[in-house]
Amino acid sequence: MKVLITGVDGYSGWPLALHLLARGHDVAGLDNFVTRKRVREVGSHSATPVLPFPKRQAAIEKHLGKTLRFYKGDMTDYDFVKFVVEREAPDSVVHLAEQRSAPYSMIDVHHAVATQVENVTGTLHLIYALREAAPRAHLVKMGTMGEYGTPNMEIPEGFFEAEFRGRKDRLPFPRQAGSWYHWSKVFDSGDVMFACKIFGLKATDVMQGVIYGTRTPEITDPALLTRFDFDETWGTALNRFVVEAVLGLPITPYGHGGQTRGFIALEDSMQSLRLAVEHPPAAGEYRVWNQFDAAYSVNELAELTKKVAEEFDLHPTIEHPPDPRVEAEQHYYQPIHDNLLALGYQRTRTLEDNLREIFRDLIRYRRRLEARRHVVMPTVNWRDADNRGKLVERIPVAHPPTSSGEVPPPSETPAPERPEV
Amino acid sequence: MKVLITGVDGYSGWPLALHLLARGHDVAGLDNFVTRKRVREVGSHSATPVLPFPKRQAAIEKHLGKTLRFYKGDMTDYDFVKFVVEREAPDSVVHLAEQRSAPYSMIDVHHAVATQVENVTGTLHLIYALREAAPRAHLVKMGTMGEYGTPNMEIPEGFFEAEFRGRKDRLPFPRQAGSWYHWSKVFDSGDVMFACKIFGLKATDVMQGVIYGTRTPEITDPALLTRFDFDETWGTALNRFVVEAVLGLPITPYGHGGQTRGFIALEDSMQSLRLAVEHPPAAGEYRVWNQFDAAYSVNELAELTKKVAEEFDLHPTIEHPPDPRVEAEQHYYQPIHDNLLALGYQRTRTLEDNLREIFRDLIRYRRRLEARRHVVMPTVNWRDADNRGKLVERIPVAHPPTSSGEVPPPSETPAPERPEV
Repeated sequence: MKVLITGVDGYSGWPLALHLLARGHDVAGLDNFVTRKRVREVGSHSATPVLPFPKRQAAIEKHLGKTLRFYKGDMTDYDFVKFVVEREAPDSVVHLAEQRSAPYSMIDVHHAVATQVENVTGTLHLIYALREAAPRAHLVKMGTMGEYGTPNMEIPEGFFEAEFRGRKDRLPFPRQAGSWYHWSKVFDSGDVMFACKIFGLKATDVMQGVIYGTRTPEITDPALLTRFDFDETWGTALNRFVVEAVLGLPITPYGHGGQTRGFIALEDSMQSLRLAVEHPPAAGEYRVWNQFDAAYSVNELAELTKKVAEEFDLHPTIEHPPDPRVEAEQHYYQPIHDNLLALGYQRTRTLEDNLREIFRDLIRYRRRLEARRHVVMPTVNWRDADNRGKLVERIPVAHPPTSSGEVPPPSETPAPERPEV
Repeated sequence: MKVLITGVDGYSGWPLALHLLARGHDVAGLDNFVTRKRVREVGSHSATPVLPFPKRQAAIEKHLGKTLRFYKGDMTDYDFVKFVVEREAPDSVVHLAEQRSAPYSMIDVHHAVATQVENVTGTLHLIYALREAAPRAHLVKMGTMGEYGTPNMEIPEGFFEAEFRGRKDRLPFPRQAGSWYHWSKVFDSGDVMFACKIFGLKATDVMQGVIYGTRTPEITDPALLTRFDFDETWGTALNRFVVEAVLGLPITPYGHGGQTRGFIALEDSMQSLRLAVEHPPAAGEYRVWNQFDAAYSVNELAELTKKVAEEFDLHPTIEHPPDPRVEAEQHYYQPIHDNLLALGYQRTRTLEDNLREIFRDLIRYRRRLEARRHVVMPTVNWRDADNRGKLVERIPVAHPPTSSGEVPPPSETPAPERPEV
């Protein structure tokens, strides 16, 4: 099948391209490289070295013997999006080109607005480009399990049989997101659902759990590595715990650590997205998948990380810093994820095996982590209207803050092992 | 109380300022005058003459003996919003400064994006400006009954006791909006709900029914008239039916005409908003009101309009053009609106009496309607990705369409009775 991946330079987009190419699909991608820029903005970099995109393409040619077509551009430019969709005429578009960090969206008003505006605009542009240039294409859109929040009941896949005062209807399950970013995903879900209704679009809306891991089977060479973020803004829970252990820092589940979420390994998230691509819904159908493998509390993840760390002669403690987020620290959590299983999804490895591999990779790149150990702990507080000052303070600043109050660029001194563009 | 009205130059904003001033409140407003511009963009103008803003302010001084402070600017400019909130330090902000037309949002991708981006950005800016400069102020935000769609059950006020597989929780009632505009209102509701949670904001989210009418008790002179739109893009159902009758056109409920909505008279919407302002919720409370007086099908409204028209020696027929929207034309509709009644809301006049007054006003301004009779019937089809051409075709064009595909400005020949700025 012809697949277009938006955000192909990202943590998920890159291994998805490898996975689909290895499975014989014809793949093109687009990206604006803004995540590379924004990770620098908060003073960090990827734990794994990420090659400039042309070198990534060359590595695909060399190691997979395949070609990845690429378009550099921004989803907020409608003409660009329409041009790529017209040119590619894809069977499926996997839409990953969104601002993906909750803490980033909580920094201040401008980061909140940028997150919601960019994500909503990009998705609307894609909806219209498909309507105009590829009306039969299947849109696989990346949402998040975080759209649902933590209701005191099982979480169905998108819709449920609601009852009120004796009457029933099948309705969208209520959303209670926990950051401006998570709300932006709720908004996109609404827009895509509506596009299916008015334009006859076919869509799979993936309520993605938290992804962890450094590897997929197709990453057979360091040149094929995907990025791996570990700072408070761009890193995710389990990934950051391993980094903490490698750096000799305490492992830090926020607050009581009873926060429970659905998690999925990077390789299994790729498996799921491929299943979505290979099994499109009917025209006009809006299909929701809760895409996670199993639910864990952050305390459980911290304990397991500590256990595996010992095998590598690392002896982290577990500490509980105050939760910078506004969330329940103990709650019921029982989401359903039947749709994925029905299509043959199978867990590739245990979480513990996966953790061993993350440790091996991160120990290999320990110097890159050491160079940025100051960005691991949280400074952005959800309840504060302006967190910019804290980020600036934390970053080893080359220039004083500008008079306009803008975040100054972080030190540009390149680390020797830092081949990012 | 000190009240700030955003969108004070609009259909609701203007009579709200008059009403609150007459009740002894201290009122300031802001506007960017974009509705005036956008109504011209679709080739129309207000049925009632709308004075330039300084003359409106002077009319308030003259007829009410009060002062309305005014700030010209755009809600997408955060510094402007923060400046006004700091300067005014209001007890309440009534937020009406949003793109408010569903058909406008459906014209094409650019109108869709503009609608959602402007509305979400303005609301986020206001949320942060309140957090930073007036954290105790009460935000009264204008939503719409259209956020709910038409579920096959009673519609509660924002929240309901949901049950799924034997467990219960109080959850936001699911939203199923019917245009990009209506979705933008859903998005704002999500953001305001979240702001109450993280910032302790107090808010009333008004799920506004369709407003009709030309008058409130404070409009005692033509210089105090509010705008009244009747074109397909900016006009609302009942208002447009009266215009059709006055122009000798058929009254045109779309499709089968069984579409049922909550309606409220302009004067009673002002009463409701005042009740919200005068009875703020507690800090951190997010309160939802379904703000309508009674539900009618568009067929019922068409019949009643026809009946009252006869009293004015007008003899309209009723015709059913194909519904350009994507909506159920027959459905269950039973929204709850107890919160408003609990605070003492009372209907001022019957719908029939109100219709008589609309007829009197519109017959007075018949020449202004005649000059724009070509803009009453629908051309924007919800299912089409690009409706610009149809709008251009319909407008008496002074210039040919530009090569960029932009909608050209409509004829600038001023009608003699058109004092809009």
